[in-house]
Amino acid sequence: MGLITPQKQQQHRAVSNTNHFTGYCPSPFKTLAKKSPLSHSTVTQFDRWLVRKMVDVVGNPPVRISLWDGVEVTPYCKNPLAIMIYCDRAALFKTILDPELHWGDLYCSGRVVFEGDMAGFMQAIFLGISGKDKISRLRKTVLWLGHRSIFNSFDQAKENIHHHYDIGNAFYKLWLDEEVMQYTCAYFPHDEMTLEQAQLAKLHHVCRKLALKPGDSVVEAGCGWGGLARFMARHYDVKVTAYNISKEQIKFARHRAEEEGLSDKVEFVLDDYRNIHGKFDVFVSVGMLEHVAKHDYQELGQVIRSCLKKEGRGLIHSIGRVVSGPMNAWIERRIFPGACPPTLSEMMQIFEPNNLATYDVENIRLHYSKTLQMWSERFEQHKDEIVEMMDEEFVRAWSLYLYGSLAAFNVGELQLFQVVFGHVENNKIPRSRQYIYEADKNLGHPFHVT
Amino acid sequence: MGLITPQKQQQHRAVSNTNHFTGYCPSPFKTLAKKSPLSHSTVTQFDRWLVRKMVDVVGNPPVRISLWDGVEVTPYCKNPLAIMIYCDRAALFKTILDPELHWGDLYCSGRVVFEGDMAGFMQAIFLGISGKDKISRLRKTVLWLGHRSIFNSFDQAKENIHHHYDIGNAFYKLWLDEEVMQYTCAYFPHDEMTLEQAQLAKLHHVCRKLALKPGDSVVEAGCGWGGLARFMARHYDVKVTAYNISKEQIKFARHRAEEEGLSDKVEFVLDDYRNIHGKFDVFVSVGMLEHVAKHDYQELGQVIRSCLKKEGRGLIHSIGRVVSGPMNAWIERRIFPGACPPTLSEMMQIFEPNNLATYDVENIRLHYSKTLQMWSERFEQHKDEIVEMMDEEFVRAWSLYLYGSLAAFNVGELQLFQVVFGHVENNKIPRSRQYIYEADKNLGHPFHVT
Repeated sequence: MGLITPQKQQQHRAVSNTNHFTGYCPSPFKTLAKKSPLSHSTVTQFDRWLVRKMVDVVGNPPVRISLWDGVEVTPYCKNPLAIMIYCDRAALFKTILDPELHWGDLYCSGRVVFEGDMAGFMQAIFLGISGKDKISRLRKTVLWLGHRSIFNSFDQAKENIHHHYDIGNAFYKLWLDEEVMQYTCAYFPHDEMTLEQAQLAKLHHVCRKLALKPGDSVVEAGCGWGGLARFMARHYDVKVTAYNISKEQIKFARHRAEEEGLSDKVEFVLDDYRNIHGKFDVFVSVGMLEHVAKHDYQELGQVIRSCLKKEGRGLIHSIGRVVSGPMNAWIERRIFPGACPPTLSEMMQIFEPNNLATYDVENIRLHYSKTLQMWSERFEQHKDEIVEMMDEEFVRAWSLYLYGSLAAFNVGELQLFQVVFGHVENNKIPRSRQYIYEADKNLGHPFHVT
Repeated sequence: MGLITPQKQQQHRAVSNTNHFTGYCPSPFKTLAKKSPLSHSTVTQFDRWLVRKMVDVVGNPPVRISLWDGVEVTPYCKNPLAIMIYCDRAALFKTILDPELHWGDLYCSGRVVFEGDMAGFMQAIFLGISGKDKISRLRKTVLWLGHRSIFNSFDQAKENIHHHYDIGNAFYKLWLDEEVMQYTCAYFPHDEMTLEQAQLAKLHHVCRKLALKPGDSVVEAGCGWGGLARFMARHYDVKVTAYNISKEQIKFARHRAEEEGLSDKVEFVLDDYRNIHGKFDVFVSVGMLEHVAKHDYQELGQVIRSCLKKEGRGLIHSIGRVVSGPMNAWIERRIFPGACPPTLSEMMQIFEPNNLATYDVENIRLHYSKTLQMWSERFEQHKDEIVEMMDEEFVRAWSLYLYGSLAAFNVGELQLFQVVFGHVENNKIPRSRQYIYEADKNLGHPFHVT
């Protein structure tokens, strides 16, 4: 099962240890069923056949499933990670029609009841599907059917970002790190790091790769709550101009910068990255590319090309993929509208047509697994508060999103790329990457050593 | 002028200090002209206009040019890097028709006489052309005209490799490093390293990236003279199966392995990489991809996919480009038949369609500048021997190739990519690249630390 976390193992045991799964009598289902809005329609042999077929197609994940009569269809599953109830026939049919899109909605609205290890279940599905060539083709079709084309105009981009980031800073504060409030992959060079330490390590890693030196001018595209911008200003003594189209985030970022006495060093601009102007020593963007439509990559590269000084250096940090394809349809529609993680070759469309050379690519996928594991744990701890703040459906949706993402990074369905680049003719680039890995006190600026 | 080496500066001064360029009297041309097979045809105003136009189109490189009457056409050039004489009208016309292809041939056959800093001249041309958008289009057309499609069948591949590598090992021995006879980019983490040290450092760098551990099985595609294969076997205690289609190189490699008592650890196979079979912990290929046609990349990826164990890791080291396009036509025809350095996005066609994830990309272009500079210096030192071994024309061709390549890496026309990869679902990958940069004695095997 790959990376099963201690927490998940506990859940796993919790489900297995009930011992209700040994016979045909589905007691836990009955308990759950009592709380669930079950349909009164009669379950047919065809319904059961459909479930068995569906389970087979996705590689027989270790989950026990019952229908709206409370009777198990998959009692042969010996060590289930979870139990699942389909509360009505339409829910079953919708899942079969487009599992990627509908299953999430059905789970969130309570028409599919799920209890157990969500991340483990998702991981089993990913692995079950990827092992089958035929299913790959089926899956591609389904992905394509469930997916809408992404054309992020200025207004659409604003709307998409508003959907995800303007939910309320209070919500994100509950489960992101308390230090720099980073909603992107952390960096764990040492296993025992806390989320707070790992987010700071990520920011240092980015700054080192960029070889920041005092007085540098930095432009940041998509600055989130301004954590990186303020960090760079404080620890590397640079001047930052940071762009974001999320009102809530910019407000928060400005407030924090004032509190921390950094207002003269960091300017937060409520605007689209496409409106960046001026010349900078450094371009940086952490976790924005996921929101940029692929057909806009070349334009993003033009923006970089024109705002980066001759000897400037840049870094883009983004979720990516190995095999090109649309984002999971449900996540794209319900959580992250407009999201589309690129493959490395797709990312190159930013750089290559604009004569920008790639110096360094690092794939830190497993760091995102660890980050998501920590986020999920914190999310679970604050579940009750979040239900009160939002509602049950919202909590189910975000749990699914967090656990689904965790599974996707665990199995390599998603990757995390950090790409360092500069103008092709720039010869002031460090010969070795050694400097990135030197101890803090030795932080040099090899980009400027001739 | 970017990276002008001390050697080049000396040449530069040597040309400038003659003081023959201050007036209209082209004494150095006359001296040179005496030795050159000048045409008796009358030089016309149109001939002169053509030269001026040509020089203007390529960005006015600092070179003084005369035609077959010995009179300078470009006396306005104040600090020339070199002097050049067109010995007949056809040579001038051919240059204008397809400079990339014909200039090299004309220089080699002595119909264009060139004296001075060849690398500096090439670099000036690269920079002069790249600054002009219109020329880019013109250049693309010319490149396309001068270029032949590359379809490397098994037989063609053999023929191409024979052309370049079976010239005679004695020739390469004269100017490559004496330690491991590497005909690929060296690695200079420290400026003051010798070529020998830097080639060893390159091999270590590759082995570290691959996190070799004793007993690993390694397959090498395109093993050259077997330097890396023997190095891995000796220093990392691994078992290597190394493929190459160059008879001369395989003969040399086997002989050396026997001499060094490594025959039981290294098997050299005279065969195409497409015939690799078996399962290995490690796949490595240094400097072979340049000889693989782009439409064969996906097939190469299939070979890797099927020969790499589930938790195996791979590395490809290759010359690359930022902007896609064919190889310089002259080099492709006369020196390196079938050569086509890819962009990073083109390289991804090996990995992405085959579900291989990229962990790490490093661009060490400037290391190739330094390597080529050292090769050129050694080549110059052994010029007389090489003339005797081959002939004048061969020496001119190889000088042009080495200096042209040096210029191409200096200006970023060519890049050098090292890509580390593995199966997408492999979670036994090191979390940090720190281990690559640790001191020798601490060499760990983080791929295997769980």
